[in-house]
Amino acid sequence: MVTSPRTLADVSESDLLRRIFPFFEGSASLAVGPGDDAAVLRTGPTTVATTDSMIRGRDWLDEWSSPSDVATKLLTQNLADVAAMGATSTAVLVSLVADPATSLDWVVEFARTLGKRASDLGVVVAGGDLSSAPEGVLMVSVTALGDLEGREPVLRNGARPGHAVAVNGTLGRSAAGLALLEGGADPREAASGIRAACLAHHLRPSAPLHAGRQAAEAGASAMIDLSDGLLRDGHRIAEASGVRIALSPAGLHDDLAALQEVVAEAAWECLLAGGEEHSLLATFARDVPDGWRTIGAVEAGDGVTLDGVVQRPRGWDHFSAQNGND
Amino acid sequence: MVTSPRTLADVSESDLLRRIFPFFEGSASLAVGPGDDAAVLRTGPTTVATTDSMIRGRDWLDEWSSPSDVATKLLTQNLADVAAMGATSTAVLVSLVADPATSLDWVVEFARTLGKRASDLGVVVAGGDLSSAPEGVLMVSVTALGDLEGREPVLRNGARPGHAVAVNGTLGRSAAGLALLEGGADPREAASGIRAACLAHHLRPSAPLHAGRQAAEAGASAMIDLSDGLLRDGHRIAEASGVRIALSPAGLHDDLAALQEVVAEAAWECLLAGGEEHSLLATFARDVPDGWRTIGAVEAGDGVTLDGVVQRPRGWDHFSAQNGND
Repeated sequence: MVTSPRTLADVSESDLLRRIFPFFEGSASLAVGPGDDAAVLRTGPTTVATTDSMIRGRDWLDEWSSPSDVATKLLTQNLADVAAMGATSTAVLVSLVADPATSLDWVVEFARTLGKRASDLGVVVAGGDLSSAPEGVLMVSVTALGDLEGREPVLRNGARPGHAVAVNGTLGRSAAGLALLEGGADPREAASGIRAACLAHHLRPSAPLHAGRQAAEAGASAMIDLSDGLLRDGHRIAEASGVRIALSPAGLHDDLAALQEVVAEAAWECLLAGGEEHSLLATFARDVPDGWRTIGAVEAGDGVTLDGVVQRPRGWDHFSAQNGND
Repeated sequence: MVTSPRTLADVSESDLLRRIFPFFEGSASLAVGPGDDAAVLRTGPTTVATTDSMIRGRDWLDEWSSPSDVATKLLTQNLADVAAMGATSTAVLVSLVADPATSLDWVVEFARTLGKRASDLGVVVAGGDLSSAPEGVLMVSVTALGDLEGREPVLRNGARPGHAVAVNGTLGRSAAGLALLEGGADPREAASGIRAACLAHHLRPSAPLHAGRQAAEAGASAMIDLSDGLLRDGHRIAEASGVRIALSPAGLHDDLAALQEVVAEAAWECLLAGGEEHSLLATFARDVPDGWRTIGAVEAGDGVTLDGVVQRPRGWDHFSAQNGND
């Protein structure tokens, strides 16, 4: 009896590649795509480059996240980093390091979503790497390349006292979604409203990718992707710029009210310390552009304050046993 | 009593970054280095990009390979792929996905060697990613970027009947070194000569990186990095170009004789199917350039032959349970 292949061990590497390459569309910027020793891309005079990895059991759980969710999250994490420099993402390289017992369906569905979402965002999947891993390991990784299109990169060190502190995108929703899942919520539940938005944002976040270029064009003085929490990432701008980021409760009121519906008294913690949000935090010397909302001001000093009270940096630290210390 | 930190869990992410960033030298091509959301590189009109990962227990064993060995091998794998396009490597991004119980010394020594070797090769470490992994997992990954400096990329599909087949670099040494280790050889033994060269080439391979650019300038019609074995990689050129690669025993005699000293009757298998060698295999319509040696000819047909006898593709396949089938 002939059965269809169920795991990576049932197909050869070249057979697997033949199954997933069709998901990756070409583009005018891609001179040589997947299948040779390396990809060849047409690039501008400055290229932005970043990389981020996700590993099963640490960055996602199969009980909660589908392969499509993982592809979406991995792509968003990387493209948000490119956007936070003021650049437009152009290409990604994708790596899969997998136990040969990994389900073939998982890999095919991951590749299908990655290809589809990249294509929707005008990003080409230029190449990648397949490697086998010891039992139980499944790791996916993306390197994203972007084009500044002649703009200067927006770094973390340009915030000055008197600049506005603004955010584009949601706050605390990924952390609230995680709290719901940890509390037993069904990741596939037919929720609606803010509860559904929080679950979805944790599992398959979107990011305001266009806003990176917009902020750069509007003269943003500093910018960062909110991957490790508003406080921790705010501290990064504060430290790099030699300033204080003073957050205003009034500016955060609407975000807080929405989160309180979902996680009640944990709302402040989600808002201030929740990671993996991938919204953009920036400072502006001049007017804050459309779609950005002011949540504070840059002051002389150091660190981050909320309503004038100094906040210890907390949020996600990858290795620290006592997460929350920096 | 104060003790020095022993594992990644004993230091914060930012503390770890402060320890390893000094190993990464800047360069004129690096506008923004490690520490912001993404790196910013000055690039030419075409950029070559590739990525490769190594995971402990599958791509290396701690009993055999030092962190310095792993850094060297990972860098060589990636830079050889860039060279095989005819490009010069300019920058790398580095990822570490590690169990927090990973030894801090391991990570520091890995970063130190990676920075040193990259610098020696004129390649800048532009950025990377740190992530935590489940118990026991240690994975390192590099994305390499290169510049074609105005040359056309050398693909796999340009070999034509009558072209010479040539190699630059060693053959079969990594596989012979692996066979020695599997036979109980001490990876730190004070060996000399060809035995030492095979052990070293398996643990910390070097590649003829300059020869990629040289071959492109000499008009190579096809080129590939020998990562999965002469037969398997030869088949890749044969298939992409729609030709036969006819290997000549006379051209391989010296390589074979050297390997026979080390692995006796396994020499042919190491030479033909041994992976991770990272020498360059190319075809030339005109004269074979200095430093390259002719090992066969391109013929009409398909596949790879040795002395006229068809050879099944064999060599490393990442996922296949019965390694050797393609």
